[in-house]
Amino acid sequence: MKRSWPLFVVLNLALVPLTLSERLQESPRIRAERLRARLEALGEIGRTPEGGVSRPAFSDSDIRGRNYVIGLMKESGLEVRTDPAGNIIGRRAGKDKDAPPIAIGSHLDTVPNGGKYDGALGVIAALECVQALEEGGFETRHPLEVVIFVDEEGGLIGSRGMIGELDGKTLDHVSQSGKTVREGITALGGNPDHPEGARRAKRDIAAYLELHIEQGGILDSRKIPIGIVEGIVGIARWDVTIEGSANHAGTTPMDQRRDALLAAARLILEANRIVTEEPGSQVGTVGRIQAEPGAVNVIPGKVDMSLELRDISMDKVRSLFSRIRAEGQRVERETNTGISFTAIEETPPTSTDARLRDLIRESAADLGLSSLDLPSGAGHDGQSVARIAPIAMIFIPSVGGISHSPKEFSRPEDIADGTRVLLRTLLKVDGANLDNP
Amino acid sequence: MKRSWPLFVVLNLALVPLTLSERLQESPRIRAERLRARLEALGEIGRTPEGGVSRPAFSDSDIRGRNYVIGLMKESGLEVRTDPAGNIIGRRAGKDKDAPPIAIGSHLDTVPNGGKYDGALGVIAALECVQALEEGGFETRHPLEVVIFVDEEGGLIGSRGMIGELDGKTLDHVSQSGKTVREGITALGGNPDHPEGARRAKRDIAAYLELHIEQGGILDSRKIPIGIVEGIVGIARWDVTIEGSANHAGTTPMDQRRDALLAAARLILEANRIVTEEPGSQVGTVGRIQAEPGAVNVIPGKVDMSLELRDISMDKVRSLFSRIRAEGQRVERETNTGISFTAIEETPPTSTDARLRDLIRESAADLGLSSLDLPSGAGHDGQSVARIAPIAMIFIPSVGGISHSPKEFSRPEDIADGTRVLLRTLLKVDGANLDNP
Repeated sequence: MKRSWPLFVVLNLALVPLTLSERLQESPRIRAERLRARLEALGEIGRTPEGGVSRPAFSDSDIRGRNYVIGLMKESGLEVRTDPAGNIIGRRAGKDKDAPPIAIGSHLDTVPNGGKYDGALGVIAALECVQALEEGGFETRHPLEVVIFVDEEGGLIGSRGMIGELDGKTLDHVSQSGKTVREGITALGGNPDHPEGARRAKRDIAAYLELHIEQGGILDSRKIPIGIVEGIVGIARWDVTIEGSANHAGTTPMDQRRDALLAAARLILEANRIVTEEPGSQVGTVGRIQAEPGAVNVIPGKVDMSLELRDISMDKVRSLFSRIRAEGQRVERETNTGISFTAIEETPPTSTDARLRDLIRESAADLGLSSLDLPSGAGHDGQSVARIAPIAMIFIPSVGGISHSPKEFSRPEDIADGTRVLLRTLLKVDGANLDNP
Repeated sequence: MKRSWPLFVVLNLALVPLTLSERLQESPRIRAERLRARLEALGEIGRTPEGGVSRPAFSDSDIRGRNYVIGLMKESGLEVRTDPAGNIIGRRAGKDKDAPPIAIGSHLDTVPNGGKYDGALGVIAALECVQALEEGGFETRHPLEVVIFVDEEGGLIGSRGMIGELDGKTLDHVSQSGKTVREGITALGGNPDHPEGARRAKRDIAAYLELHIEQGGILDSRKIPIGIVEGIVGIARWDVTIEGSANHAGTTPMDQRRDALLAAARLILEANRIVTEEPGSQVGTVGRIQAEPGAVNVIPGKVDMSLELRDISMDKVRSLFSRIRAEGQRVERETNTGISFTAIEETPPTSTDARLRDLIRESAADLGLSSLDLPSGAGHDGQSVARIAPIAMIFIPSVGGISHSPKEFSRPEDIADGTRVLLRTLLKVDGANLDNP
């Protein structure tokens, strides 16, 4: 649709009044156009034909993305190093040489054919904050560290390195790039054989703040620009195996079948019913399924599938699972199959810091932006950092709640507002007495 | 468990009375031990670690199996040739030089890790009949042909060649062996570029008889040794595609999902309900399923699966499908997904010849064996041959109804009885006036 601007607007562009949030903003100035341009430039690195981004950790595109960001860090006067876990750390000195640094950042790696905002937003916004401070001649009391965690999508690898939890099994795991994590970290200039060098102790970091897209659709559907993350949900995952009997699809009467896929279909529906029928924000998903032998003319004799449950309360996750397992036993009996659940992963929930949440809330209010407390359904590096420092996260809306997809999109105005809240919160943290909790 | 035999049985082994079926048998004598030994020997060719047989058409093991059988044919005095479609034809002359041959046979190829009986039984039994005639000095009026159809499991390739229906598309299809059908037939000594040389016209064959394992569990569970195949069911197959929306399994609230796998699970259960809730022997199967992207932490955005329906009446298949499709539309609406069905294959049902069925029934009765008329839920080469000649099939029990599996098993006594019925029927056909229907 063509839009015609009233003449006085065109003539008065230079004099156009500041928005409410701009008027309330303190002097270090976030530049929305620079944010947008840098996110676009980063989105070109690993761009896919579908318009998404493939920048799995340790891939060539990941390395190019890192080099681009290291360049920006140096432009902003940061002192840049790669820690032994492969994390990039750009440091800006503070007035108080004994104060621990405030860390801000996110990650650069993406899922295959993912989006331009997940991770990248938090990195570019952190750089914008530092650059705004630099341009405004602002000095903080604490040193600042822009941290770019390595391989977030592969399982919070960099942040686990930072808290000393990178074990041999994880290092030997073959990452999405085809390299093992160990090979990948080495290629980035880390030193995976001495990961203890990356380790930060409790109180080594004053606070960790991260700006991220919501990935869900709550802020977008409710038109709220700022989300304050209450905590990161706990995740439990199972491999589910259903054993039936493979047989000829033409010659086996319906009442003599032990069809593993039919049993799986029932279990999928029952799990969904159990997760959805009680109030709350818990989620449950079967994302992966394989039927064997998998031929059009053979009754499936075996199904392997995944089950994942998430909630901010692990008790709720456990209670949902026990109901699903009980239902599984009924399906087992009624379909003459065998159903087994093997727990493969359990990540406990993480709480964000209440004082930091208050500072985010105040900052949003200062800028005239409404905010909403909400859980993060996705995992983030903050989960690791929370073990050694207070953490908080700021979410901005994802249009349509879409993420991990070429269609992932956040509006430039939301990006700028989120970055302003990040900067303002950072300055409040710098002024607050968070060092001695 | 050790079993102790009463002394008189041990002493009288050589004098043990003939069974009813042995007493009723005519002079050409089926040798049960030879049948068993040859089936075992054939089962060693392509034997898998699980005790099954992998002898896909055109593979090295298929070629070795064919060479073994060609050797047996020559031992029995048959004149052996490979037709341009790759079928092996072993001919024994008859008294009447103008009479068309009676054909008996089956196939040697198997599904991957299949059983020792599917196909092989009919081949070894046909050879046993000819050998018994030879040993008994029996001459038939009609010439006899033992036919070993090529690549039955890959889609009745050899028998389609025999009726002139082997088209370029089929010849270019990559078979289970990795070779195209064209390359495979060439490797077997056929001439796929001139398949018309394999073509037999109407009345070129007096009748076609095949002995086969039931593959289902009807004869076994009812303890009936002989099945008389009423017809071969019609088969219709569809590719079913369900389009939802892939999204983050942690951040997407349950009520904002468009989960393609959840919709697929509902459709699988509805299809099963529709197929089972009305009386009859129709079957319906979803054997293949794939969810994309197929990750534990991503809501499936797309599911591809198969749907197969079989019945002796194509009208019933069509009516079942229209009910499943209607149910699919309801699922589509209720899950906010898109479901489409693409017909990929339709094989009409085949009737066996009523006169031949009567001769099988008489033969079984002569031998004191009970018999049951039943449909074949599986496809067989007889479907093709029925286009040019009267056909019939004799089934023997599959223990537990298992086939296409290393566990496929038929008892030696059932194999011998089935072969006796085949031979007796063959001789009745030779005496009957089937040439001028």
